[in-house]
Amino acid sequence: MIASLDTLDTPCLVLDRGKLWRNLARFDTAVAARGVRLRPHLKTAKSLEVARLAAPDLAAPVAVSTLLEAEYFFRSGYRDIFYAVGLGPGKFPRAATLLRAGAHLITCLDDAGCAAQLAAFAAQNQLTFRTLIEIDCGEHRAGVAPDGPALVAIARALGNSFAGITTHGGQSYSSRSPADMSAYGETEANAARTAAARLAAAGFACEVVSVGSSPTAISTNSLAGITEVRAGVYMFGDLFQAGIGTCALDDLAASVLTEVISRSVDRNTFLIDAGAFALSKDISTASLQPALQAGYGWLCDLDGRLLPGLKVERVWQEHGLVVSDRPLAADAFPVGARLRVLPNHVCPTAASHGVYHIVDGARAVIAEWPRINGW
Amino acid sequence: MIASLDTLDTPCLVLDRGKLWRNLARFDTAVAARGVRLRPHLKTAKSLEVARLAAPDLAAPVAVSTLLEAEYFFRSGYRDIFYAVGLGPGKFPRAATLLRAGAHLITCLDDAGCAAQLAAFAAQNQLTFRTLIEIDCGEHRAGVAPDGPALVAIARALGNSFAGITTHGGQSYSSRSPADMSAYGETEANAARTAAARLAAAGFACEVVSVGSSPTAISTNSLAGITEVRAGVYMFGDLFQAGIGTCALDDLAASVLTEVISRSVDRNTFLIDAGAFALSKDISTASLQPALQAGYGWLCDLDGRLLPGLKVERVWQEHGLVVSDRPLAADAFPVGARLRVLPNHVCPTAASHGVYHIVDGARAVIAEWPRINGW
Repeated sequence: MIASLDTLDTPCLVLDRGKLWRNLARFDTAVAARGVRLRPHLKTAKSLEVARLAAPDLAAPVAVSTLLEAEYFFRSGYRDIFYAVGLGPGKFPRAATLLRAGAHLITCLDDAGCAAQLAAFAAQNQLTFRTLIEIDCGEHRAGVAPDGPALVAIARALGNSFAGITTHGGQSYSSRSPADMSAYGETEANAARTAAARLAAAGFACEVVSVGSSPTAISTNSLAGITEVRAGVYMFGDLFQAGIGTCALDDLAASVLTEVISRSVDRNTFLIDAGAFALSKDISTASLQPALQAGYGWLCDLDGRLLPGLKVERVWQEHGLVVSDRPLAADAFPVGARLRVLPNHVCPTAASHGVYHIVDGARAVIAEWPRINGW
Repeated sequence: MIASLDTLDTPCLVLDRGKLWRNLARFDTAVAARGVRLRPHLKTAKSLEVARLAAPDLAAPVAVSTLLEAEYFFRSGYRDIFYAVGLGPGKFPRAATLLRAGAHLITCLDDAGCAAQLAAFAAQNQLTFRTLIEIDCGEHRAGVAPDGPALVAIARALGNSFAGITTHGGQSYSSRSPADMSAYGETEANAARTAAARLAAAGFACEVVSVGSSPTAISTNSLAGITEVRAGVYMFGDLFQAGIGTCALDDLAASVLTEVISRSVDRNTFLIDAGAFALSKDISTASLQPALQAGYGWLCDLDGRLLPGLKVERVWQEHGLVVSDRPLAADAFPVGARLRVLPNHVCPTAASHGVYHIVDGARAVIAEWPRINGW
């Protein structure tokens, strides 16, 4: 035993390995049942130890959100790595270094000019990129229309660096029911199939047809024609995911350990040492129905039991203001009391921390797993 | 020359040294004119190189927001370090280690129970803490009332670990005019004077009477009885500070370098590779008048010239959606174009980055200054 939640320096990030395992198993089973392979997105965890559980086979496909992650997971033995954010020309050299080193790096883009530059760069450097054309399936973030003129033009511009298509139904986060998610998933898969069929008709067969988000990955009925689904948040879960029903509250694997540093019984509030930096300023649950709105996070005791009626209502850099919806007893939550905060959105919360303190259903810290941040 | 803004990997954090110097000089002069010493708060910069400019004398007082900062700046030679966030019992051992190593560490708290625990811990460890009682001057974050019963009780509980008082008029961030700031500053100073006078009458002379925030530090007319003012954001400035008038737009020293990775002329938008992680999810300028609302940041060209009509309107983990309020020319901001984003609130923006890329009015990167993060 390295330490315990009773003694760790606060604030810090805690990860329950048992919950992580269950989340991974549940998702793996659900995706496998759809006859498609899962490409775990490591943008949430950014940790080799988590990756080894989510993708135990080093030959397995993984996705990343930064080239730093691609370099880190490649150094750690992964090969089939999809950098799932549009590749701009400024990143060609770093991507090329990975390709030369032997990474089966997959990149994506959605712009004919950029595709032509990439093809020229690849030729000049005697490299072949494996590039997916990003399709907009309705989120209107990135991507070209599956039925528009840009699609085939980009494939032509890419030449032998063309490898397929990718799309992300991020609008599925507005789902409030399994039926919503399933519908968004169909939209996502249909956009991908439409684009792949048009490309095939133009002579560009898609080796990779990649779709996914945590809500749609396990909600889409038909994944015919899809070669892989991507998801990342499912590993840890968070209050927003629980709020939209992609996991249960009891599945939340990550929390922030904190200490009470000030209290005001008059105002029915107390302060914790987890503020905007330790929790992030994400307030995504504010878009959910009132009973699910968690401010900057809900509170648990050290054993992970939810403490009803308490939420972090305001944050400053290193202060979090916890408001109770019921009168606080004079001796409740004294200065020095330790609590755990469940995050609204675990990706930004985790990104403030450099290490996961691993527990497994108890207070003993059984390991420390580093994570990377930055670019 | 290490690199240039034309070639750095994106996204990354850029700091203009000339602007930093001017901000420091302007603030130093304004505080000195008030006949009080400045305790620069290093929570924004978290960088030894910035500290050396803000507090060139290693004997100068500095403030920090985490014990990790205290340890880092102490290792770097600073001695007079105020950890300006309430000290909970879980942090006594780390604070004690700093005291034993010779740091003139100042801590603060606002709770009689915690004060008694600290006094007992100090006695047991044969240490004397220098502890300030935190006063609530109207922000209602932390602190006891300057005229309430807890004040003297806490001083008694602290015994010889009592050193004075501290207060922070954080409500001054709702200032929208110099008159507002001055009024908040008077409130802050008056609360401090009231508390100090009551403590003196009870036999507890305040060695330290510490006040401050970036808006009040240079707006308060009378600082009689105040021994020091604290401020941190003034070093860099940000869109919120410019919006409330504590700096000019041209003073903003920090920005995020980014590359265009996708564009949609139809929707009058483009995507940059600086999203929620590189910029933070802070939207503090949303509380300002419409012309000052910056979304997640305003855009500049590589030479730091503001590009009117462009703002980051939405962010995902690694994507920022820039919306133009005027039609984008077909060849404007092509994929690969480089821009700089001015941050809403520079503290969280900087906290996602591990290094400042230093420029001085041009694109050449003349140095790299590391910064620390975490706890």
